[in-house]
Amino acid sequence: MAVVNVVVFGCGRMGRVHLTTLAALTRVRVKWVVDDAGIHPRVQQVLESLRLHTTNVADIADVDTVLGDKEVTAVVICTPASNHESLIQAALKAGKHVFCEKPIGLSSESVKSSYRLAAEKDLTLYCGFQRRKDADFSEVYSKIRQGVIGTLRIIKVTSRDGPSHNTADFLKHSGGIFLDSCVHDLDIVCWLAGERPLSLVAYGHAHEEMFAECQDVDMTSIMVKFPSGAIATIDNSRMGAEYGYDQRLEVLGSSGMLKIENPRTSSVQQWCDVGTVLAPMIHDGVQRYLSAYRTEIGHFIDIVTGERERDMSAESVITVSQMVELCQESLDTGRSLPLPQLHI
Amino acid sequence: MAVVNVVVFGCGRMGRVHLTTLAALTRVRVKWVVDDAGIHPRVQQVLESLRLHTTNVADIADVDTVLGDKEVTAVVICTPASNHESLIQAALKAGKHVFCEKPIGLSSESVKSSYRLAAEKDLTLYCGFQRRKDADFSEVYSKIRQGVIGTLRIIKVTSRDGPSHNTADFLKHSGGIFLDSCVHDLDIVCWLAGERPLSLVAYGHAHEEMFAECQDVDMTSIMVKFPSGAIATIDNSRMGAEYGYDQRLEVLGSSGMLKIENPRTSSVQQWCDVGTVLAPMIHDGVQRYLSAYRTEIGHFIDIVTGERERDMSAESVITVSQMVELCQESLDTGRSLPLPQLHI
Amino acid sequence: MAVVNVVVFGCGRMGRVHLTTLAALTRVRVKWVVDDAGIHPRVQQVLESLRLHTTNVADIADVDTVLGDKEVTAVVICTPASNHESLIQAALKAGKHVFCEKPIGLSSESVKSSYRLAAEKDLTLYCGFQRRKDADFSEVYSKIRQGVIGTLRIIKVTSRDGPSHNTADFLKHSGGIFLDSCVHDLDIVCWLAGERPLSLVAYGHAHEEMFAECQDVDMTSIMVKFPSGAIATIDNSRMGAEYGYDQRLEVLGSSGMLKIENPRTSSVQQWCDVGTVLAPMIHDGVQRYLSAYRTEIGHFIDIVTGERERDMSAESVITVSQMVELCQESLDTGRSLPLPQLHI
Amino acid sequence: MAVVNVVVFGCGRMGRVHLTTLAALTRVRVKWVVDDAGIHPRVQQVLESLRLHTTNVADIADVDTVLGDKEVTAVVICTPASNHESLIQAALKAGKHVFCEKPIGLSSESVKSSYRLAAEKDLTLYCGFQRRKDADFSEVYSKIRQGVIGTLRIIKVTSRDGPSHNTADFLKHSGGIFLDSCVHDLDIVCWLAGERPLSLVAYGHAHEEMFAECQDVDMTSIMVKFPSGAIATIDNSRMGAEYGYDQRLEVLGSSGMLKIENPRTSSVQQWCDVGTVLAPMIHDGVQRYLSAYRTEIGHFIDIVTGERERDMSAESVITVSQMVELCQESLDTGRSLPLPQLHI
Repeated sequence: MAVVNVVVFGCGRMGRVHLTTLAALTRVRVKWVVDDAGIHPRVQQVLESLRLHTTNVADIADVDTVLGDKEVTAVVICTPASNHESLIQAALKAGKHVFCEKPIGLSSESVKSSYRLAAEKDLTLYCGFQRRKDADFSEVYSKIRQGVIGTLRIIKVTSRDGPSHNTADFLKHSGGIFLDSCVHDLDIVCWLAGERPLSLVAYGHAHEEMFAECQDVDMTSIMVKFPSGAIATIDNSRMGAEYGYDQRLEVLGSSGMLKIENPRTSSVQQWCDVGTVLAPMIHDGVQRYLSAYRTEIGHFIDIVTGERERDMSAESVITVSQMVELCQESLDTGRSLPLPQLHI
Repeated sequence: MAVVNVVVFGCGRMGRVHLTTLAALTRVRVKWVVDDAGIHPRVQQVLESLRLHTTNVADIADVDTVLGDKEVTAVVICTPASNHESLIQAALKAGKHVFCEKPIGLSSESVKSSYRLAAEKDLTLYCGFQRRKDADFSEVYSKIRQGVIGTLRIIKVTSRDGPSHNTADFLKHSGGIFLDSCVHDLDIVCWLAGERPLSLVAYGHAHEEMFAECQDVDMTSIMVKFPSGAIATIDNSRMGAEYGYDQRLEVLGSSGMLKIENPRTSSVQQWCDVGTVLAPMIHDGVQRYLSAYRTEIGHFIDIVTGERERDMSAESVITVSQMVELCQESLDTGRSLPLPQLHI
Repeated sequence: MAVVNVVVFGCGRMGRVHLTTLAALTRVRVKWVVDDAGIHPRVQQVLESLRLHTTNVADIADVDTVLGDKEVTAVVICTPASNHESLIQAALKAGKHVFCEKPIGLSSESVKSSYRLAAEKDLTLYCGFQRRKDADFSEVYSKIRQGVIGTLRIIKVTSRDGPSHNTADFLKHSGGIFLDSCVHDLDIVCWLAGERPLSLVAYGHAHEEMFAECQDVDMTSIMVKFPSGAIATIDNSRMGAEYGYDQRLEVLGSSGMLKIENPRTSSVQQWCDVGTVLAPMIHDGVQRYLSAYRTEIGHFIDIVTGERERDMSAESVITVSQMVELCQESLDTGRSLPLPQLHI
Repeated sequence: MAVVNVVVFGCGRMGRVHLTTLAALTRVRVKWVVDDAGIHPRVQQVLESLRLHTTNVADIADVDTVLGDKEVTAVVICTPASNHESLIQAALKAGKHVFCEKPIGLSSESVKSSYRLAAEKDLTLYCGFQRRKDADFSEVYSKIRQGVIGTLRIIKVTSRDGPSHNTADFLKHSGGIFLDSCVHDLDIVCWLAGERPLSLVAYGHAHEEMFAECQDVDMTSIMVKFPSGAIATIDNSRMGAEYGYDQRLEVLGSSGMLKIENPRTSSVQQWCDVGTVLAPMIHDGVQRYLSAYRTEIGHFIDIVTGERERDMSAESVITVSQMVELCQESLDTGRSLPLPQLHI
């Protein structure tokens, strides 16, 4: 089996998660890790702990050298969102398959442009919508497709961060709640529905002063209508209560319902005078989706090697980026808005 | 303790439920039951089974005689919705306190008019929003008021009928999903929020032909925004899946969440190869809220005797009737709509 | 339909529960309530609140008069256990059907003797093992009989009182943990197994001084072996922890398991930093089994009127009384003991 | 940090589990894997997949060479139980610390003898009671020690295999249900109780012919009494129903209860006409305790390097082996038996 040579851009939290997965795949060689020179000592420690003794470390300024490496066939992008578009386009132009953490771009036009380029080059551009690869979400998706609950009617997503560590500085560069957080929820409802939506409407509010000052909201509820008559509602919050990271799903069909409840940190129950206390949920988003992150990287490598077909369509990713823009407009205008045409 | 003499209008399903409660209250005498002469034999059977040996049965045509009875101080109205306005107004004019099953009237103007009359006469006009008297909903209401979850942010109501027995004939006279069914959900979200809403938006769809033919929808999702920034979403369906009558609530505050799950028909679990099967929910709405129906009639009698203060404000009932009208308009126009002024 | 004239002996807590049921049965007339003259004013209040205007109140000294009443066909005994044997035998001799709260007698010989008399007279002697009539236990019994879990292998009963209000005075006259409390558990395991056991062994301990002083234990674990190879374990405690009245069942068969979990006081959940808090269990035993108490009295009256066959065999009640004696002997000797012959 | 050189004996299922853990520990070098020459090709595949390029493979006949390797300080024994005693003693004599899968020996005398030798040599002899290292069991242990539930009173262990793949051949060499399976349950109840038991009694039955033919039982219930008055019950089955691998714990104290429920294969629920179906449990024992297996090996290495104190006392392991022998005697004689003196 041929070894796939991979470049990883960005060695922050998600970069380290993906590096750990890649290190365990015997058919993969992480040839390069690229990040700011200033954090190279830390990158070396990471590589050491993963026994990645043959990986090279490059500065972000050396992108051309790295992308010019003929052995490399795939890149994994985990840098801040503002770099995504330029790195994606450079990588595609260099003939590499691309996995990129969401968002693919800061606007739907940017996303379209990158997908057009990937299509021209016949390369994979894979968006890190890891929730699609989560075992629970996959199980629900499969059961819907198997007809377990009949015709789909209602999709309800709850998506609330745990106790917040957001800073004003982060918020100013995050792109807002829709681009940075709801993007996952919007993707999930369209993926489960298997349809492009007709329209949406968003309500929201900044309960915390910091969000208001950043012209952002910390809580939003969105309704999405589909051609089949199915309706999705999304309840997203950036500042969850103390009770933790809360990611639930409910899908109602004509003959039954499927639900995903939150996994808990343990199976221990405490019975006392106030009742029965079930263990808290997993509080950390990366921990919650750790297996999904592993699975998606494995699938991406499978696609690169041709063992698996592409399963993340350009249309689906572009639709989500259009919905992100509509959500903001709906919140600003108080109107329910139709989806625009999808010209790729 | 003085005995309260009561008239019950309508001896259908809800009439019988309320008669059973009234029969068990030692301070109440059911002096009259009024219904169509054609069903008087059945009414007599009901009275017999409840050992109500001194109750008189009158025809609906004898309303004046019955309301002219000086001993009677309170009436309970369980007739079809189209009779509510005229019976309420006749009873108030005759100086009786009134309990009426929802809706108080078919339009918000009708509701206002009845409440104006009750105010003039200083009589109680009590709307049968029994969910406010349900033990679970009451517990959540109290905990919110006690500050258990901090500041209120999200209210989510799920309200789905069990396997449907609706007929086209019923639907044509029901007043539509918002007046006939969502009215309870709209009341609950305003009651819990403790605020009059700013605006709402409704999506909906007729999945079943019969509903489309009756210019009605069988499923609707509604978002409601409150001045505090709290957002409520309602998910109402008239044709539940086979899994049963589904009435759940979720309330998120700044420091925690409260949920009401469906009570089940038993505490028996079956563990087999497919997993663990929890017993089905209670399928029947009247069964689900039986205690609440008992409690609300008891409260009404307490108010009549002066042992309890009025707790169902005119403003709250009128607001709900305005929201019902806005929901229909929002569904028709696809717009998010502000609440009108509340002039009583 | 002929009316059944009934005598109720004892108007304590259980007496009032059964009186409430009897008052609601239209085919029953409570002709007599018998209790100490000292509490007759309280009895009159109870009768008043139940609208039992034609019931006579008699002193316990007037037993002969009451049992001599030819109209009476059935008696319900809710007096302290020490009176059971004499009242049962007097009632049977007077030709009345008997419902008696457990235990039928203080020894297995006493129980046998009463059942022999009932057999001679062809009268019903019905023991108040209400748990057999509980909806959850009945459902499990039926499912076992329907083969839902295959061949029975393990039965596990948890039976723990809520926060204890036992007094030394009560304990001295209670007959001990096996006669007073485990009797229900022993009955349930034999009833579910559908077999007479082979042997049993009991461990126990007095954690509280008061129990030790009364030569009793406050906690016991019992294993029972059946001819089929099925094994039952009973975990009974008279001094539950603060978390409440805990009555659970688990039945393992060759192809599945059935469990009964505790019903809770509400369906409200609180989600907070410690996890998810489910509402406490129902703390009061009478409240927990209220429906079962109603059902058993209804069944007893059905048997008296011939509408239902006898379903509480002499053999089953005598077996339980033998097991009670064996449990005490096993606890004292530390031995596993075989069941004696069942000569009725 | 010095590297610990380790030998792994046995490359069956548990050997591979432990090899995977050892391969991920940077301070460990697996210097030797020892198994029958016949399966060396398979061992090589395992080493390849784990990137263990410097590990040597030896035949079981070369034990002396391997144990003579001065670099090696620790051995991990995962061979069949019949080899444990001789390998443990040879390793201890060669001055190596020993981790051994349960049982340490086939009799309590053998276990004592090995612990005496370890004490003489001042070496660690660590028994693979992985359940003590499971996150859920550890949490319960800690909460008991913190006093969360007050004084311990009842411990109930449920321990049932999933659908059985046992063969008569396996059963004949397994040492019986107590040595092979209940050993974990007996260890857990003593570990949680923190006391050496006073006595025990075992009931059991062979429902399947194959077990009877091997003079074994497939189901057993055991009661254990402790000096404090605490009572433990164990419900162990080797042939679970279809519903899966079932490992639950319940611990009652004077002021509350702790329970461990089974982790499930997913958090997906299906709501349909029969009720709500929770996902099946994890069916496979190795999968269920995978993290615990990882943790215990890590702890063993910590003890070898002196970073952690010994936490698996000789007394506790010898006590369990005595209990195994008593269980068999109790089953055979039908008697409750006192624990013998513990002379080490």
